[in-house]
Amino acid sequence: MTPVVALAGGVGAARFLRGAIRALPTDSLCAVVNTGDDREFYGVHVSPDLDIVTYTLAGRVDPAKGYGLRDDTYALVDRLAALGHETWFRLGDRDYANALHRTLRLRAGAGLAQVTDELRRSLDVPIRILPMSEDPCPTYVELSGGRRVHFEEYLARDGAPDDVRGVDLSAARSAAPAPGVVEALGEADAVLVCPSNPVVSIGPILAVPGVAEALAERRAPVVAVSPIVGGAPIKGPADRLMRGIGVEVSALGVARLYRGVVDGIVLDERDAALATEIESLGLRVAVTDTLMTDVDASVRVARAALELVDELR
Amino acid sequence: MTPVVALAGGVGAARFLRGAIRALPTDSLCAVVNTGDDREFYGVHVSPDLDIVTYTLAGRVDPAKGYGLRDDTYALVDRLAALGHETWFRLGDRDYANALHRTLRLRAGAGLAQVTDELRRSLDVPIRILPMSEDPCPTYVELSGGRRVHFEEYLARDGAPDDVRGVDLSAARSAAPAPGVVEALGEADAVLVCPSNPVVSIGPILAVPGVAEALAERRAPVVAVSPIVGGAPIKGPADRLMRGIGVEVSALGVARLYRGVVDGIVLDERDAALATEIESLGLRVAVTDTLMTDVDASVRVARAALELVDELR
Repeated sequence: MTPVVALAGGVGAARFLRGAIRALPTDSLCAVVNTGDDREFYGVHVSPDLDIVTYTLAGRVDPAKGYGLRDDTYALVDRLAALGHETWFRLGDRDYANALHRTLRLRAGAGLAQVTDELRRSLDVPIRILPMSEDPCPTYVELSGGRRVHFEEYLARDGAPDDVRGVDLSAARSAAPAPGVVEALGEADAVLVCPSNPVVSIGPILAVPGVAEALAERRAPVVAVSPIVGGAPIKGPADRLMRGIGVEVSALGVARLYRGVVDGIVLDERDAALATEIESLGLRVAVTDTLMTDVDASVRVARAALELVDELR
Repeated sequence: MTPVVALAGGVGAARFLRGAIRALPTDSLCAVVNTGDDREFYGVHVSPDLDIVTYTLAGRVDPAKGYGLRDDTYALVDRLAALGHETWFRLGDRDYANALHRTLRLRAGAGLAQVTDELRRSLDVPIRILPMSEDPCPTYVELSGGRRVHFEEYLARDGAPDDVRGVDLSAARSAAPAPGVVEALGEADAVLVCPSNPVVSIGPILAVPGVAEALAERRAPVVAVSPIVGGAPIKGPADRLMRGIGVEVSALGVARLYRGVVDGIVLDERDAALATEIESLGLRVAVTDTLMTDVDASVRVARAALELVDELR
């Protein structure tokens, strides 16, 4: 039984979850994580968001970057670069080893949910982490001139240009939810939508057939934390992607995207003025300082979300 | 044009070749290397003998082990071990990167000969290095009780036990020579058989259809350096493998194995007493100190082999 299920992307979600695991009893949280960013690099299956969440909750993430492992080395990509390979995705040696484990286990017939569980257990992460799907769900970003690139190419290779024309989640739309996802949502007392990119992190999770349906059928309140503060994302290209699909870059824009899915939203203090308009969409609003500069701040934001859940019961 | 072709296994061959490249004019040497030890480890194509020869001639080999790269790190296998993988084959991070390059290039359609050339050029090795074949040629060792293991399992995992009953070179016997091998042998002024394991290093090369034929048709002298000194190999399990296939563990046993293929053999001083009996097999014999304790010693042994070639013209 995992009474609280969190829908999660990468860095923002991981920072929120490190607070949530401290604000909740052990074993009462399960994260369902976006796999739309997954891609093969250097022959191995890399799952950026699963790894960011796992490494952060293990206390092992590189604190400066927010992804990768602290004190990792880069012998492998440096040697590949010398041999002429494209190495814009700088995967550390230990990070690569985890992705290699994933690849070898998948090749041996294990499912991504099983392998994700092996990796989080090996790093002593105390909560269940589930991929949204075990099927390939690549997210593509559509750019000007008809160009179309994988999300990691858009973000890590091209530096997130602002000429976004659309986002293609068609792979997620025809994927099956991973084993355990629909069950966890069905059993949940509360669902939290982490402060992740609503378009390319939460969007793919909600696009997987069965996930939105499980949320619609639930009795449990669904509460999101806005990843947009003062009209801009804390980190990442959410502004360019929201604009690219025609959504206002504000907590109000986030609320509009999540309308019909979430019951409440936690706003940052700087966006308190948007509360009335968001409430007029039918969402309950809570306001707090949502900047998660340290673990205590993460705990405070998680508590605000859980209090809003209680209000909504 | 490569007037001298050397048939090569691993450590003994590499030590001989580091002398031969100094005893010969630049561009006049080409090594044809055993691939019977090749195996997939951790998802990548490892070619132990190609790598030993390449790293040694690059001056980059780990001098204590005779294989692997000097000052390599082991983050990858250490992490895989922590995740429960078998890691008896201790591949360093940079060594792994080279094998990963090989794997990715093979997957993209390049041939093993092409990739071997890319790797030796990237490490500034001045001579051509050719795999004996681009086809899979796994050598199996047959043990008591009907057990049958890949050669690297026999050597690196099981520690080379002495209950050898036979050696299975059937894969090599149905493989095609790699592009360039038959041509190099046909053009050669001299062929050197390096002081490698005659059963599992030189044996597979000679087993590839077309190689022995090219040697039989050649006008060039073929000279071997005995890897057995004073009734024992300098390194490796040649004694157990020779005994296992019913061959006397001595320079005489080596000469008998190579009879019909080589014209001459360089013996160590300690085996000078065997010269008459080996000559009675129809082989010309030279005697020198064959221990290659440093590069100068390697040059001396290579010169002895090349002088025997000259005598045989």
